Amino acid sequence: MQPSGYAQLDATFAALADPTRRAILGRLASGEATVNELAEPFSMSQPAISKHLKVLERAGLISRGRDAQRRPRRLEAQPLAEASAWLERYREYWEGNFRRLDALLRDLQPKPRRSRAKHRHSKRTGDRR
Amino acid sequence: MQPSGYAQLDATFAALADPTRRAILGRLASGEATVNELAEPFSMSQPAISKHLKVLERAGLISRGRDAQRRPRRLEAQPLAEASAWLERYREYWEGNFRRLDALLRDLQPKPRRSRAKHRHSKRTGDRR
Repeated sequence: MQPSGYAQLDATFAALADPTRRAILGRLASGEATVNELAEPFSMSQPAISKHLKVLERAGLISRGRDAQRRPRRLEAQPLAEASAWLERYREYWEGNFRRLDALLRDLQPKPRRSRAKHRHSKRTGDRR
Repeated sequence: MQPSGYAQLDATFAALADPTRRAILGRLASGEATVNELAEPFSMSQPAISKHLKVLERAGLISRGRDAQRRPRRLEAQPLAEASAWLERYREYWEGNFRRLDALLRDLQPKPRRSRAKHRHSKRTGDRR
């Protein structure tokens, strides 16, 4: 059973908050794998891996393939798309931050003499309100 | 102090795995706010909000503004950019899923008569087990 809406985002982000679970998704991105195959690179017990798989499965991030014997796990990327869409709303802020940093670095550059003088002049003559 | 690398992603995703914390970030996206201002829309005690703010602050998702009296909180979007970049690697998978869904929906469209008749015929003659 897969959660929906807010609960889906809660489950997705919670599932991603662990390096082993992120690595499992990374492994599954290159194809289905059994629990044993998934456990191998982590030098973790099979029950420890199974616990992580349960979290990923409850969040709808993995499913089980058709082979009843091997029960291979498969990546289900749809919840990742929703998490990405949520983050996307903040893009203008992080890009804004980079822009602000750019502006700061520009301000720290030495300015050409003439343009500063001109700016001061226009202030003096009351050209600018 | 802000975590780094894997630990940063752990902290970011864990911080995002809560609807109140996501709503706080949403509020801060429209400008700095004090703890009281942040607590208002949630009908939550100030200590409960402060606990959420601590999680967000430890993950580097918010910081404190300069006004020492009001201590307004401010959105820090950089960790969101890193979380987004991590998810971005899976884009081809969820887009692949949409493409597979498209193909499935195309397959469900009624087929030209000739090919259906052919299929039924092969069924009747015991072609299928």
